Amino acid sequence: MPVSIDINCDLGESFGIYTLGMDEEVMPHISSANIACGWHAGDPMVMERTVQAAIRHRVRCGAHPGYPDLLGFGRRTMQVDPAELHCYLIYQIGALAAFCQANQTSLHHVKPHGSLYHAAVADEGSARAVARAITRVDRKLLFVTFAGEKGEMMARIGREYGLTVVREAFPERAYTAEGVLAPRAMPGSVITDPDEVIRRGVRIAAEGCVEAITGEVIPLAAQTLCVHGDNPQAVAMVRQLRAALIERNIAVAPIAA
Amino acid sequence: MPVSIDINCDLGESFGIYTLGMDEEVMPHISSANIACGWHAGDPMVMERTVQAAIRHRVRCGAHPGYPDLLGFGRRTMQVDPAELHCYLIYQIGALAAFCQANQTSLHHVKPHGSLYHAAVADEGSARAVARAITRVDRKLLFVTFAGEKGEMMARIGREYGLTVVREAFPERAYTAEGVLAPRAMPGSVITDPDEVIRRGVRIAAEGCVEAITGEVIPLAAQTLCVHGDNPQAVAMVRQLRAALIERNIAVAPIAA
Amino acid sequence: MPVSIDINCDLGESFGIYTLGMDEEVMPHISSANIACGWHAGDPMVMERTVQAAIRHRVRCGAHPGYPDLLGFGRRTMQVDPAELHCYLIYQIGALAAFCQANQTSLHHVKPHGSLYHAAVADEGSARAVARAITRVDRKLLFVTFAGEKGEMMARIGREYGLTVVREAFPERAYTAEGVLAPRAMPGSVITDPDEVIRRGVRIAAEGCVEAITGEVIPLAAQTLCVHGDNPQAVAMVRQLRAALIERNIAVAPIAA
Amino acid sequence: MPVSIDINCDLGESFGIYTLGMDEEVMPHISSANIACGWHAGDPMVMERTVQAAIRHRVRCGAHPGYPDLLGFGRRTMQVDPAELHCYLIYQIGALAAFCQANQTSLHHVKPHGSLYHAAVADEGSARAVARAITRVDRKLLFVTFAGEKGEMMARIGREYGLTVVREAFPERAYTAEGVLAPRAMPGSVITDPDEVIRRGVRIAAEGCVEAITGEVIPLAAQTLCVHGDNPQAVAMVRQLRAALIERNIAVAPIAA
Repeated sequence: MPVSIDINCDLGESFGIYTLGMDEEVMPHISSANIACGWHAGDPMVMERTVQAAIRHRVRCGAHPGYPDLLGFGRRTMQVDPAELHCYLIYQIGALAAFCQANQTSLHHVKPHGSLYHAAVADEGSARAVARAITRVDRKLLFVTFAGEKGEMMARIGREYGLTVVREAFPERAYTAEGVLAPRAMPGSVITDPDEVIRRGVRIAAEGCVEAITGEVIPLAAQTLCVHGDNPQAVAMVRQLRAALIERNIAVAPIAA
Repeated sequence: MPVSIDINCDLGESFGIYTLGMDEEVMPHISSANIACGWHAGDPMVMERTVQAAIRHRVRCGAHPGYPDLLGFGRRTMQVDPAELHCYLIYQIGALAAFCQANQTSLHHVKPHGSLYHAAVADEGSARAVARAITRVDRKLLFVTFAGEKGEMMARIGREYGLTVVREAFPERAYTAEGVLAPRAMPGSVITDPDEVIRRGVRIAAEGCVEAITGEVIPLAAQTLCVHGDNPQAVAMVRQLRAALIERNIAVAPIAA
Repeated sequence: MPVSIDINCDLGESFGIYTLGMDEEVMPHISSANIACGWHAGDPMVMERTVQAAIRHRVRCGAHPGYPDLLGFGRRTMQVDPAELHCYLIYQIGALAAFCQANQTSLHHVKPHGSLYHAAVADEGSARAVARAITRVDRKLLFVTFAGEKGEMMARIGREYGLTVVREAFPERAYTAEGVLAPRAMPGSVITDPDEVIRRGVRIAAEGCVEAITGEVIPLAAQTLCVHGDNPQAVAMVRQLRAALIERNIAVAPIAA
Repeated sequence: MPVSIDINCDLGESFGIYTLGMDEEVMPHISSANIACGWHAGDPMVMERTVQAAIRHRVRCGAHPGYPDLLGFGRRTMQVDPAELHCYLIYQIGALAAFCQANQTSLHHVKPHGSLYHAAVADEGSARAVARAITRVDRKLLFVTFAGEKGEMMARIGREYGLTVVREAFPERAYTAEGVLAPRAMPGSVITDPDEVIRRGVRIAAEGCVEAITGEVIPLAAQTLCVHGDNPQAVAMVRQLRAALIERNIAVAPIAA
């Protein structure tokens, strides 16, 4: 049984006058923040504030780079040439790293956002673009990808580039027997019952497995649990998940870099 | 008499499909490049290419941050709150620093672009925003400002923040007797005769003075000469200026950080 | 005594995933909507939805163009060349007019946003740029400017260009004895007591005058009252203002173009 | 034998300080201009200038809308929801129409740019989004699509929406025996010999057919020929093509709307 697990959440997604997410409310309950870098969301003021809030709550700062698509929140497929994508990653990681430096902390991990994440999981060229960018900027940065079968290729490429790979699981999402996320269109793919989410989160952390949507228990080795903080219910659930983990003697703590 | 002087030039101002400047042509003749950071000009691919070209030519890389105004090329006055400006600087410096890191070099200096430069020279709040951003990211970065009276306030603030201040002179521009640039509207304010520009550049480097538009010789202590590389004539002039300096035993070399 | 007055409100300021304002809630209580055109706020989907909501509520659609500054919500001073500003206005007015056309209505008025509004009120070059753009696109469009002394120059220029000028008053803002808005920094400049706002709104509509911050009653001839709809209190106040006007036999209706 | 054919060219692709294309040089030789609308290229000043230049040369103005991707020049696949794409089209068409109105001309046609064009040709949802947007803004606007098999679906959808469909051929590009463009990767797919391009252009105009890359003569009914104007050679070729057409008594003229 692991003594600890990380809880990560996407944060810093406000932009200019626009506010998104309950960053201040969810921050006390997580251990890693994936901070938007100003391309699909976020701006320099938001990045500064989010890094400072993370430090106050002893949360580790990660870069959450995305496609250049603020209008689509980085959720739309864009066919970006890998050489170009590679440079987009260096740019965004560097920008966030500077806010970490300016606040006497260091950047901890990189987790791609939205469609860029999906591209990196599905397409080897994109995965290499991301991994190589991280390696070139700072090979100590943790490389986050999906736990289970779905993240296997991306994980392998991360290791090829000499990166420490961290696998993340989604306690709010149903898994197929093959260990991939059940598509959102499938009934039951998004789990909304807080007790059920907490049960699943604890099981992933404690036993390294999860019950698939078809009933089988499948292995799911994950070092971090991805949660959301965009509404009061989500925040409450994260708080309860953390409490439930601690109650079972599972520490909630960032992954050692 | 100084043994060496720096020659700096704004580079990396292309964007996407759009090409601007003769970067490859001017690079062999300068010692410091001020590289656009993707806000008023430049993009991640251009930043990567420009840093790599600078390294090939033993040119030092500086950040050339600007206002968020690609449409206006950062040349329009924008009233940006200093706290916000401060974060814009951290962001842009960090982004360029990452490309330096990725290419095994280090960022060397920061020189604001266009209207942001003018704001930093004229307005103490803006100057502090820039200086503080540099200090927070990396206090070894050189802080470039105008030589002469005009850059005095900005230089003082840079020193207050513990930065090494570098003063730049413009051999292509006329100075008033007070040591400020003659306004562009004034006849003779832009010097187009290459021989005259070279004469002025050499005199600034060798004697630390320049002839004002009204005929007096005024002191102008500068460690770097700012040149342009956006057309063949400009590039030829930079080449000749460098040759003329070397002929007079003035080395053209970056400033030691 | 006028038989009717217009109530106008800035709307359509959401962008992509970001929501701003309570457009649906305030729409039933106003008669004119100033719809953001995608530069300082708004996007094509938001513009379509807002025009359609306006039509449902028999609210007239106006263009609310702004500076190219989404990050600063068009609230920052930008020194834009009048010839260029002129083209920015044609562009934004045209974009919104197309959504009106696509929904079988027609664009009704133009009211500049934020810093662009302030520039048009204070600077003759900017005022001409706006007025001329409107005239060139469609001289039937109403030209909204401040009531009172402050809007006099802009109104005069609008008339010079052959436009119908509409003057707007701010019942939530204190006026000086000279008929200009008391600066926001001055205590009492923003009126937060709903009863007081309603009293002032009714008096402007019924009597064409308002009590200045120093106690004098000053003339304030306005054909439209500007209100806000960005929070529940604001929306409630608009609802009450409308009711109070109707109770006094003052119809709330758009200005005839 | 047709008495006339149209020659169209993409123009107005400069942005801010960046210049692209030889608009002034190519304008005298064409009859229709596809003008960028500020999303993938172009800006309001460029749109104004391009519309005015078109009028001076009796060239008809068309909208050339693209994806929101200035960095990628609208050439990258973006998976945009059709409802959203539909609104992007209304926005861009409306913006350009306003410049036409401001200059006492009217918008004449719509031809999507780059990846958006490819999407509209290949994907029915995108084709409908474009056609419906045009219909809603102004059903008199001509709807340009590929000649031959490849443009058949898009043409059919245009007609369904009640639009007049115009088919365009590419004299500089090789066609397969199936009447689709030979992929750019295929040797010989881009025809660089001016005489050959002119021969093909004349044959398409005069006989409604073209020799495929495999030697067969295939029918290719086109009302407009697409040419380029981004370099001196291209401009010279357009001039010669026009002369060759006129010499054979084929008028070069815009399509009647």
